[in-house]
Amino acid sequence: MAAKRVCLRDLVERFGGELVGDPGTEIERVATLRNAGPGDLSFLANPKYRGELAATRASAVVLSASERDSCTLPRIVARDPYLFFAKVLALLNPPERPAPGIHPTAVVEVEARVDAEATVGAHCFVGRGATLGPGAVVGAGSYIGAQAAIGADSRLAPRVTVNAQCIVGARAIIHSGVVIGADGFGFAREGERWFKIPQIGRVVIGDDVEIGANTTIDRGALDDTVIEDDVKLDNQIQVGHNCRIGAHTAIAGCVGIAGSTSIGRNCMIGGAAMISGHLVIADGVVISGGTLISKSIAKPGVYTGVYPFEENRTWTRNAVWVRNLDALAERVRRLERSADRPEESL
Amino acid sequence: MAAKRVCLRDLVERFGGELVGDPGTEIERVATLRNAGPGDLSFLANPKYRGELAATRASAVVLSASERDSCTLPRIVARDPYLFFAKVLALLNPPERPAPGIHPTAVVEVEARVDAEATVGAHCFVGRGATLGPGAVVGAGSYIGAQAAIGADSRLAPRVTVNAQCIVGARAIIHSGVVIGADGFGFAREGERWFKIPQIGRVVIGDDVEIGANTTIDRGALDDTVIEDDVKLDNQIQVGHNCRIGAHTAIAGCVGIAGSTSIGRNCMIGGAAMISGHLVIADGVVISGGTLISKSIAKPGVYTGVYPFEENRTWTRNAVWVRNLDALAERVRRLERSADRPEESL
Amino acid sequence: MAAKRVCLRDLVERFGGELVGDPGTEIERVATLRNAGPGDLSFLANPKYRGELAATRASAVVLSASERDSCTLPRIVARDPYLFFAKVLALLNPPERPAPGIHPTAVVEVEARVDAEATVGAHCFVGRGATLGPGAVVGAGSYIGAQAAIGADSRLAPRVTVNAQCIVGARAIIHSGVVIGADGFGFAREGERWFKIPQIGRVVIGDDVEIGANTTIDRGALDDTVIEDDVKLDNQIQVGHNCRIGAHTAIAGCVGIAGSTSIGRNCMIGGAAMISGHLVIADGVVISGGTLISKSIAKPGVYTGVYPFEENRTWTRNAVWVRNLDALAERVRRLERSADRPEESL
Repeated sequence: MAAKRVCLRDLVERFGGELVGDPGTEIERVATLRNAGPGDLSFLANPKYRGELAATRASAVVLSASERDSCTLPRIVARDPYLFFAKVLALLNPPERPAPGIHPTAVVEVEARVDAEATVGAHCFVGRGATLGPGAVVGAGSYIGAQAAIGADSRLAPRVTVNAQCIVGARAIIHSGVVIGADGFGFAREGERWFKIPQIGRVVIGDDVEIGANTTIDRGALDDTVIEDDVKLDNQIQVGHNCRIGAHTAIAGCVGIAGSTSIGRNCMIGGAAMISGHLVIADGVVISGGTLISKSIAKPGVYTGVYPFEENRTWTRNAVWVRNLDALAERVRRLERSADRPEESL
Repeated sequence: MAAKRVCLRDLVERFGGELVGDPGTEIERVATLRNAGPGDLSFLANPKYRGELAATRASAVVLSASERDSCTLPRIVARDPYLFFAKVLALLNPPERPAPGIHPTAVVEVEARVDAEATVGAHCFVGRGATLGPGAVVGAGSYIGAQAAIGADSRLAPRVTVNAQCIVGARAIIHSGVVIGADGFGFAREGERWFKIPQIGRVVIGDDVEIGANTTIDRGALDDTVIEDDVKLDNQIQVGHNCRIGAHTAIAGCVGIAGSTSIGRNCMIGGAAMISGHLVIADGVVISGGTLISKSIAKPGVYTGVYPFEENRTWTRNAVWVRNLDALAERVRRLERSADRPEESL
Repeated sequence: MAAKRVCLRDLVERFGGELVGDPGTEIERVATLRNAGPGDLSFLANPKYRGELAATRASAVVLSASERDSCTLPRIVARDPYLFFAKVLALLNPPERPAPGIHPTAVVEVEARVDAEATVGAHCFVGRGATLGPGAVVGAGSYIGAQAAIGADSRLAPRVTVNAQCIVGARAIIHSGVVIGADGFGFAREGERWFKIPQIGRVVIGDDVEIGANTTIDRGALDDTVIEDDVKLDNQIQVGHNCRIGAHTAIAGCVGIAGSTSIGRNCMIGGAAMISGHLVIADGVVISGGTLISKSIAKPGVYTGVYPFEENRTWTRNAVWVRNLDALAERVRRLERSADRPEESL
C-alpha cells in the first residue's frame, strides 16, 4: 500500500538500535517473518516464532540482542524489537487524513462549532453547541450530541455515537459502533414496577484513548464516568455508569465493568473478564481473561479465576464433585479425626 | 442543567415522607453526598456511604428512618430514600422532548403512518407500512423496517434498528446500537454445509421496556420473541430467537440468552450471566453475575456458579485439583474403606 | 405472510421423503406443533416436543421414520425432518429482493463500481474503489469503505460497516451493527505509554457466510483475518485480528476469540465461550458454551470448562473449598501416608 521507502540507516537514525549488515538496505513494507519478501522488514519479538527466522525471505529483520546472531540477514538489534517494528510500521503507514470540511449530506446544527480543520463525514449529525477541534475527523453516519466535544486530531470511525454533553479528549481513536453516553442502568423499585433514575452525568474521556468497535460507555447517574489518558479499550467492552478507568490501563475485548467501579492506572484486563460494581481495583493489577472479579483488589499482582477446561466426559466426572466439595472436605475431616484417635473409630 | 427549583415542603407534598428542618429549604439539583454543594439535595441509600454524610455540603438529604438522627441538616425521612431521590431527580430533569416532525433528510416511505406528534430524526429510514405513535421519537440515523410499529411516547436514541414487522410498545426507551429483529441463529446440517432456516417470526415488545446500548434481540424462527411489560435490559445483552422474558424482569449488561428460553416475571439476572437455550426459568429467580445456567430452574431463589478468583499462583495450585477431583474423591473413598476395615488395609 | 401454496406431493417430489396420507393436502405456511392450524405444515425434530404431536392442529407434519406411526395426520417421513422442514420454510418464504439501484440519499464515490443489479439503500456510503457485485444489497445507513468488495447476491442489513479493503464473498448475510475491519487491538509499551501498532491487514470473508447482529471482526495487523466459506457467526461475537475460522464452523452468540487464533473446519462453539489468542483449534472440535479455552486443542472432541451452578448458599459452602483444594489434597496425602504406615501416625 505504502509508496514510502526507507533504508536501514534512516531507521536507526530515527529510532536507535544497532545496525548489522548493509546500512543501505531498502525497506518498503513491513511483514511477518512467514510472509515477508524482498523489500520487507520483519521482526522477531516472540521466541515462539524463532523457527520462522531461518526461512524468511525478508530483506532485513529487527530482533533483540539475545537473537543477534540467529541469522545473517541485514538486521537491527533493538532493545524492544516489537516497539521498533511498530514505529517503522507507523512511519510507512501514516493514517490517511481526509480533507477538512463538512460533507453536504451531514447535518450540523447552527450553534455547533466545527473547526475549519475538522472533517465531518457523510450523513453525520452534529448537535447544537457541540465542538469539534482542529484535525478532528467524524466518520460517516456518526452522531455527536448537543454540547458534546471532540478534541483535536481525534478520529471517529463511521457510525459512532457520542451523546449529549460527553467529552472526548485529543488524539482519540474511536471505532465503529461505539456508543458513548447512553443512559446508565439505574432503576428504583416501586412495588413491582421499576422507576427509572434519570442519568444526568456525562462521560469524560482523556487524551490518547482508543475505543474498540461496539464498545459502550454509559454516562454517569449524577457524577461522570471517567476514562483517563492513554486508556486502550478493545471491542465490545461494556463500562457501566460512574466507573473510572485509570491512565494507561488496557482492557481486552468482551470485558464488562459494572457501575461505580474504579480501576487503577496501568492495569491490564484480559478478554471476557467481568468486574462487579462498586469495587476499587488498585494500580498495576493484571486480571486474567474470563475471570470474574467480585471483590476489590488492594495490591498489584495477577489475579485469576477460571474453570480449567477438559474433555467433556472428564469434566462431567470432576464437576459433580465441585458441587459436593463441602461434603468431601467433611469426609476428610472425619478421617483425620479418626486417624488422630484410632481407638474411637473402631 | 435544570433551572427548576423546589423546596422541601413541595417535595414532601408530592412524594410523601417526613420533613425534619426548614420546609422552605430550596433545592435546585440532586448530587451525591460527596459532590453536593449548596442548593443540592443528596441521599443516603447504601449504608456503605454513611461516612460521607457528616462531611456533605448538601442543603438537604433524604434518608431512612433508621438514619433519622445521623445528621442535623434539613432532611426528608422516606421509606425508600433511593426511590424518593429518583423521583426528585426525575422532577428536576424531565427528558427533553424534541419538536414533532420529520427531519428533511429522513426517508419515510409513503405507506408509513407517522403520527403528527411523533419526531423522526435526521437520516432516519421508516419503511412502508411502519407506524409511529403519538409522541414517539426516533433518533438520528435509526431504521424502522416495513410494517414495524413504535408505540406512543417511545424514545429511540440515534442509530437504533427495528427490523420489519417488529412491535415496540408504549413508553419504551431504546438506546443507540440496539438491533431488534435480526434473524435468529438457525441452520440445519445438509452434509457438511449449513442450510439457513428462514426466520419469519417477529419481536414483540410490551410497554415501559428499556433496552441498553448495542443489545440485540433476534426475531423468532416461526413464533415470536416476546419481551413483556416493564422489562429492563442493560447494554450488550443478546436475546436469542423465540425467547420470552417476563414482566418486570431486569437483566444486567453482557448477558446472553440462547434461543427458545423462557424467563419468568420479576427475575433479576446479573451481568455476564449466560443462559442456555430451551430452558424455563421460574418467576422471581435471581441469577448471580457470571453464572452459566444450563438447566431449567423451577423455583425462586438465588443461583450462582462462579469460579472464585485469587492470586494467579494460588489459582494455579488449586485449579489443577479441579481437573483431578474425581480421582481425589476416589482416594478419600479408599481411605474410608480402609478406615472401616483397618485389618484389610495392612 | 407468504401467499404461496404447495401440496404434499409437490414437496416430496422436490425434497424427497415418503408420503403417508393424502398427497393433495395443501400447505400454505409452516408452524410449530403447538401453534399450527389448518393449512400449516409442522414438524417433529426434537423428541422433547413429541407430546405436542397428538394435539397439533396442523394439516400435515414432517417426522422421522421412528415416529412414522406416532400420528394419523397426512405426513412426510424424512431422513432429517428438521432439514426437510427448513427447505419447505425457505420455499414458502423466499427472501425479499429490493429493486436494484442506488437510493438518491446514498453517497457513492465516483470510483466505486456498483453493479447495475446491486441495491444501495438510503443514507449508505460507498467509498472510492469499492465494488458491489450483481445482486448485492446494502441496507440503509451502511458504510462500505474504500477498495472494499461485496460479492454477488450478498445481503447487508441496515447499519453494517465494512471498512476499507475488506472483502466479503458471495451470498453473505450480514446483520445490522456488524463491524468488519476495525483496527485490531495492538499496542507496544513505550515506558508507561502505549504505542499503537498500525493495523494494515484486511478481513477476507469467503462465500455463504452469515454474520449476526453487532458482531465485530477486526482487520489483521500485517496479514489478514480470514473467515472461510460457509462459516456461521451468531450475534455479538468478537473475532480478533489475524484469526482464521475454518469452513463450515458455526459459532453461537457472545463468543470472543482473541487475536491470531486459528479455528479448524466444522467446529461448533457454544455461546459465550472464550478462546485465548495464538491458539490452534483442530477441525471438528466442539466447545461447550461458557468455556474458556486457554490452550490449543489438537484433536476433535467435546471440550468443557464450566462451573456448575447451584443455589447460592450451597455454592458459597462449596466454592470456599475451590480456593483450598491444594490444601485439601495435601490433607488426603497425609492421611494416605499415615494409613500406609499407621505406626508412624501415632
